[in-house]
Amino acid sequence: MRIVIALGGNALLKRGEPLEASVQRDNVSLAARSIAKLAADNELVLTHGNGPQVGLLALQSVAYSGVRPYPLDVLGAESDGMIGYMLEQALQNELPGREVASVLTEVIVDEADPAFARPTKPVGPVYAEADARLVAGAQGWQVGPDGDGYRRVVASPEPKRIVEIDTIRKLIDAGVIVICVGGGGIPTIVDSRSGRRVGVEAVIDKDLSAALLAVQVQAQFLMLLTDVEAVHEGWGTPRSRPIRSARAAELRRMAFASGSMAPKVEAACRFVEATGFPAAIGPLMRAPDVLAGRSGTRITT
Amino acid sequence: MRIVIALGGNALLKRGEPLEASVQRDNVSLAARSIAKLAADNELVLTHGNGPQVGLLALQSVAYSGVRPYPLDVLGAESDGMIGYMLEQALQNELPGREVASVLTEVIVDEADPAFARPTKPVGPVYAEADARLVAGAQGWQVGPDGDGYRRVVASPEPKRIVEIDTIRKLIDAGVIVICVGGGGIPTIVDSRSGRRVGVEAVIDKDLSAALLAVQVQAQFLMLLTDVEAVHEGWGTPRSRPIRSARAAELRRMAFASGSMAPKVEAACRFVEATGFPAAIGPLMRAPDVLAGRSGTRITT
Repeated sequence: MRIVIALGGNALLKRGEPLEASVQRDNVSLAARSIAKLAADNELVLTHGNGPQVGLLALQSVAYSGVRPYPLDVLGAESDGMIGYMLEQALQNELPGREVASVLTEVIVDEADPAFARPTKPVGPVYAEADARLVAGAQGWQVGPDGDGYRRVVASPEPKRIVEIDTIRKLIDAGVIVICVGGGGIPTIVDSRSGRRVGVEAVIDKDLSAALLAVQVQAQFLMLLTDVEAVHEGWGTPRSRPIRSARAAELRRMAFASGSMAPKVEAACRFVEATGFPAAIGPLMRAPDVLAGRSGTRITT
Repeated sequence: MRIVIALGGNALLKRGEPLEASVQRDNVSLAARSIAKLAADNELVLTHGNGPQVGLLALQSVAYSGVRPYPLDVLGAESDGMIGYMLEQALQNELPGREVASVLTEVIVDEADPAFARPTKPVGPVYAEADARLVAGAQGWQVGPDGDGYRRVVASPEPKRIVEIDTIRKLIDAGVIVICVGGGGIPTIVDSRSGRRVGVEAVIDKDLSAALLAVQVQAQFLMLLTDVEAVHEGWGTPRSRPIRSARAAELRRMAFASGSMAPKVEAACRFVEATGFPAAIGPLMRAPDVLAGRSGTRITT
């Protein structure tokens, strides 16, 4: 079976952990061990988030005064290099003799996407409100409330097209485990005047890009792995209960947390509706159980 | 003809230019225009340096105190993401409809390579001696004299094996323009106790890795493009003269500047000796002339 697996940020970093290289490497090794169990019987395509990593690169870029901070498309590409490398090396160590390759991926977004006028996607650390205002003024960032504090927010436009899709398909067909569309893909517009591709200041939602990828490589399963046991109905209320399986249409009638579970549910529904194949949202460390339906939430037509 | 092209650091940054993202993007666009002229009649495989970029990422990593500076293998992977993306997008804009892909590449080095005991490869900016001693002490770096000042020096071990070579071959065979082995490849050892791959603190010479790549993809031409018109005999002396063509054995009897021209000459000689096919060292902006033998230095058996 051809499976697209989207790894949540916690594949590299658990909530509250420091963003040290060694911490990420250890977490990636554990994630690779879980995923590697699927590799014998399936064609695997992996994608991953990059929120904390892009946030760190942005802070480092700001902390050094020698050059102006780099734009988000370039920082996204840097994070794809870092995460793609760590994930690839960890998988190679779990699966000696298997080919694993990381392909940098641009994803085309619409330059007229309304997201550019209304940034909503938080990146980087949480600030106290006053600090957030200061850094926003100094860097030209927009900030918005997030949990107990404030974070930088950036545009999160809709993914429209995966530029390297033909290359990705060729490699999957040849038996290579492909890591691609990292961080939702490097956000790129086609300039309407010149016709040229240009990177833009944005972060594309990695779950929505994973759904697009899964449709376009004709995957038979989309697996969104994260640090929750399952999607919950009434999350955060006394009547919260895990959803073991649901139809896309049922999930679409429920409300989920906009920053975390809502895009995963949306991505799963899009894939299921477009292909008729199932999707699942479940715990990273139990990839085989999620595939078998013994863990997580399974979404069907 | 299958051609491996190694782009010198000046493809992204001319000597003395600031390391701004916009400056690199403009330079990459010019380099892509030169290289794109070869794409209609040839299979192209591109590789590139990353010295100034890794230097910048290291400085940014040090400037931000929130986490410990990342090791050089991870910074190298970040730079591959950044440079690979810029180069890929620029080539796609010059060659609409052609597939261009960047593949992250680990290169295996020997954990017993003597280079680890004697770091020689400069990365990052030039410091005054006193400042160099300070930063070396604070960061645990080694520094050494370079031109008028001091720079950080790191190990530059011999490239032994390109991990993703099968993937790279598959893509070239399928007509994809492949960008790979960036910055000489991400330096990786096979740990002799565990048998696992582990990234290491080093920078592999990109020209030597380009020669290895060219041999392993069975290239018929290795082109090392940089900011000089040709290799010169007696460079820096009154009797300096450009070498238009030479046999590898002749070049091996001459002496060249260790940091810049010597590794290029060594790489060209290795490729020519291993394959019998020619190599050339010449100016970046005249790739078609270098291929035709109208510019640069051609090296043959």
